[in-house]
Amino acid sequence: MASGDFKTAYGEWKKKLGLHEEKHPPIRRRFSTVSDLEIPQALYTPEEIKDLDYLRDLGFPGEFPYTRGVQTNMYRGKLWTMRQFSGFGTAEDTNKRYKMLLASGQAGLSVAFHMPTLMGYDSDSPQSKGEVGKCGVAVDTLADMETLFDGIPLDEITTSMTINSPAPMLLAMYVAVAEKKGVPREKIRGTLQNDILKEYIAQKEWIYPPKPSMRLVADTLEFCTKELPNWNTISISGYHIREAGATAVQELAFTIADGIAYVQAGIERGLDVDDFAPRLSYFWDVHNDFFEEIAKFRAGRRMWAHIMRDRFKAKNPKSWMLRTHAQTAGVSLTAQQPMNNISRVTIQALAAVLGGTNSLHTNSMDETLALPTEQAVMVALRTQQIIAEESGVANVIDPLGCSYFVEWLTNKVEKEASAYIDRIDQLGGMLAAIEKGFPQAEIANAAYHFQRQLETKDKVMVGVNRYQQEEKSRSIDVLYIDKTAEQRQCARIADIKKKRNTSKVETSLIALDRAARGSENTMPFLVECVKNYCTVQEMCDVLRKVFGQYRDPGMY
Amino acid sequence: MASGDFKTAYGEWKKKLGLHEEKHPPIRRRFSTVSDLEIPQALYTPEEIKDLDYLRDLGFPGEFPYTRGVQTNMYRGKLWTMRQFSGFGTAEDTNKRYKMLLASGQAGLSVAFHMPTLMGYDSDSPQSKGEVGKCGVAVDTLADMETLFDGIPLDEITTSMTINSPAPMLLAMYVAVAEKKGVPREKIRGTLQNDILKEYIAQKEWIYPPKPSMRLVADTLEFCTKELPNWNTISISGYHIREAGATAVQELAFTIADGIAYVQAGIERGLDVDDFAPRLSYFWDVHNDFFEEIAKFRAGRRMWAHIMRDRFKAKNPKSWMLRTHAQTAGVSLTAQQPMNNISRVTIQALAAVLGGTNSLHTNSMDETLALPTEQAVMVALRTQQIIAEESGVANVIDPLGCSYFVEWLTNKVEKEASAYIDRIDQLGGMLAAIEKGFPQAEIANAAYHFQRQLETKDKVMVGVNRYQQEEKSRSIDVLYIDKTAEQRQCARIADIKKKRNTSKVETSLIALDRAARGSENTMPFLVECVKNYCTVQEMCDVLRKVFGQYRDPGMY
Repeated sequence: MASGDFKTAYGEWKKKLGLHEEKHPPIRRRFSTVSDLEIPQALYTPEEIKDLDYLRDLGFPGEFPYTRGVQTNMYRGKLWTMRQFSGFGTAEDTNKRYKMLLASGQAGLSVAFHMPTLMGYDSDSPQSKGEVGKCGVAVDTLADMETLFDGIPLDEITTSMTINSPAPMLLAMYVAVAEKKGVPREKIRGTLQNDILKEYIAQKEWIYPPKPSMRLVADTLEFCTKELPNWNTISISGYHIREAGATAVQELAFTIADGIAYVQAGIERGLDVDDFAPRLSYFWDVHNDFFEEIAKFRAGRRMWAHIMRDRFKAKNPKSWMLRTHAQTAGVSLTAQQPMNNISRVTIQALAAVLGGTNSLHTNSMDETLALPTEQAVMVALRTQQIIAEESGVANVIDPLGCSYFVEWLTNKVEKEASAYIDRIDQLGGMLAAIEKGFPQAEIANAAYHFQRQLETKDKVMVGVNRYQQEEKSRSIDVLYIDKTAEQRQCARIADIKKKRNTSKVETSLIALDRAARGSENTMPFLVECVKNYCTVQEMCDVLRKVFGQYRDPGMY
Repeated sequence: MASGDFKTAYGEWKKKLGLHEEKHPPIRRRFSTVSDLEIPQALYTPEEIKDLDYLRDLGFPGEFPYTRGVQTNMYRGKLWTMRQFSGFGTAEDTNKRYKMLLASGQAGLSVAFHMPTLMGYDSDSPQSKGEVGKCGVAVDTLADMETLFDGIPLDEITTSMTINSPAPMLLAMYVAVAEKKGVPREKIRGTLQNDILKEYIAQKEWIYPPKPSMRLVADTLEFCTKELPNWNTISISGYHIREAGATAVQELAFTIADGIAYVQAGIERGLDVDDFAPRLSYFWDVHNDFFEEIAKFRAGRRMWAHIMRDRFKAKNPKSWMLRTHAQTAGVSLTAQQPMNNISRVTIQALAAVLGGTNSLHTNSMDETLALPTEQAVMVALRTQQIIAEESGVANVIDPLGCSYFVEWLTNKVEKEASAYIDRIDQLGGMLAAIEKGFPQAEIANAAYHFQRQLETKDKVMVGVNRYQQEEKSRSIDVLYIDKTAEQRQCARIADIKKKRNTSKVETSLIALDRAARGSENTMPFLVECVKNYCTVQEMCDVLRKVFGQYRDPGMY
């Protein structure tokens, strides 16, 4: 095809489209993604990606810039890890569900801790009243961690732990459980979320101020680099940023900016970038907008590869690879007509897989109503299995590669996210940007804009602002947490406290205090504390005294 | 990018892939679609589509060869029609559901008739015992049709009627109802399935032998061409061919070969191809294999455009356009863990939309168990609305256009389907091929092959041959048909027979007999019969006597 012919034909078609749309106006005045990223054209052609250079922009899977995926043969070699985030009640309750999930074909565990653990309080604290085992599993001491993984071979599975401020304490517990099971440190595999920056940006589950929090992150980074060669140290998380109302571009930009800050912190700790960067991983939200999500996953890999190679001069290709877990968007689910959520989750999961995710959690249809029932969890897992086994999409690597629209959108998302990162650089990096309230304000604006669009029906949520219907009663079963969990868990703490060696507890907490005040790595001290059955709160309280507590600056 | 650089880099990457796969063997020995079409490569690149010529192979939407879609601005101008196939019990029962569907945002109706109507028997016939209103709505006379569309404005909606051997009778009824409502013939819009060839190939709901059946098709073709300018005369259906076990390629090939036979029949009737071809439409199955389905939709449009322009010398671009309805694959659904079907249907519906369908039925999760409940129908409709309103995929035309893999697969599917069509041409066309049992045998082989693959677990159905689980009881509600339907319907026929003008019934049936024996078009005679409240069976019996009845030749 001569390119002149194409240009002429395209010009003629555009004229025809214009005339057609004069007579038959399009169904909307403006087309845009769920993030309101404008999709200006009805059609994408060779013209819109004429500057695309295959080797420079796409390359081959497993090779720089990883646009088409981080592994050489992607899902032909190994499917993504199906990893359902789960935890409720006591460690005993959750242990049962883990065994059910593993028996049903799930490949890795993902621990949801209850709010008191996330905030560094014990189940018997006044702050924990009514929250014990409600939105996750109660873990107060090593004893709970032992129960949680009872009968589960830690050298065969991988475990992800969603924990941030108290991440060092829970990591220490996992290390201690493995040791008790005789699993050597180099054999334990998993991921610690340990992403404190996004707490200040979006999720708000912090304990200490940003700077000492970053020191704890660096402590775990250093400890894992030296001791746990197969452990992913930080799961740099866009999920919570997106769920707080960010756009896809903001999610991508702010999360990568967080990643830049962690790499900087590791380097400042004196680590060689190639010694720790290969064990950083990402965690994306997967929202409803199918192509925007696919573009986000692809753009993210390309951006991170350039940042790691060109900005941080990493030499190990493993440092350049953005490996990612993904979770379907909780915020997209509706309490109305809850079975519709199965459709949403399917679309989102398919986007994550076509985007080349390495691990995936699919939400259960009932998560807006309560903790998921066993049946709902099973449908969510089956959704992944249907995509893997029936849909055929795992047969090839990056099946959408070079679609005019997908490449155009990938470029667009990358360009807009890069502009944000430039701006954050100008503000002095993510820590400074957070202190100035920049990402927080941007997200708040986006969230407000989306709410307005829902009100004006510019954006539709089926069953919420359109296609509502009378629902006589709950059309699905919901799970109610056993009300005895709190009582059982408090009795358990009391029992542990009675049995443990009090003087060892005290000595190890004092040693922790000393380490925190100095510049030693706190991790080995925490490992010692947990082995003596110090509680999460006891350890966190020591650090509260040393580091102080953060209060919401209320910047927006 | 110099193409030499690309070739070198690709060669190196292929070597790397080979070494990688020696060390880490892929998860399957051979990768293929659900139809077992081999996907030989892990990756698709510019190399695999180097012969693609944009203008020749893709072109612009609304222009030859329509690969990217038949309308100029596709879903930006008008979403696909959400058309849920539905019918059960009596006309009164079904009329209620139609009103519910229209109120819920559905844009068109699609009538499912019960088995007796499909086979040309009345509800009070001995053959109908136990089948009345079971798998569709009972329609015996014009009185039922009047009730079915009571309160529904026929000039505002479009109606699709799934009926084949007795298609002329039901079309005559629809025309008569419109006349009674004062809606002029040029204003009624809809589609008659009227595809008898696929009955001999797959579905087996025939009455007369192939040749007189083709004459009736030609009668409707001629009648509609002259009288109903906005009525789609034949919905050339791959659905039932696929559901009988055909591969995607067979579905495409045999259905287009049927289309060729109908066009031939129209031309032989003396019609100008451009006078009737614009009102032929297609009906595809959408199975689980996401990209195979998208490729099938795209390849189908390109093939039909060439056939109509180059083979039949049609000059009107409307004759070249393959417009299509689609339905998600009933055969892919499982009775086990029925909520998993919502995921399957979502994947399939998304493929149909990305393939550019013009109309879509999404199956309800419970269709393998019983007729769908209202809730299940609603979830299925909501799935389409979520795709339309939340997923963003309708923002652009043919969003996968030029994906290396999708274009490769589109070419591959077209090539294989074209080879089948050549073979059918060599056999003397579809009617001759059917008489030789060719398509039947090909489908039977494919169905057997798939069954074997399920047994060896080469192919997986989640919940059926993998990931089974104990199911204590029905996890969802099912609809039970009111057992009084048969009794009510028989009483209704008796009442109509008492009230109607018997001599007019006899006169019009005698006139029909005469027309059938001669070469006159039977349609105006059928319109006269229905207006006199002749029953479906009375009219079919007249033709049974004239044309004889077809018996299964048991060729395979």
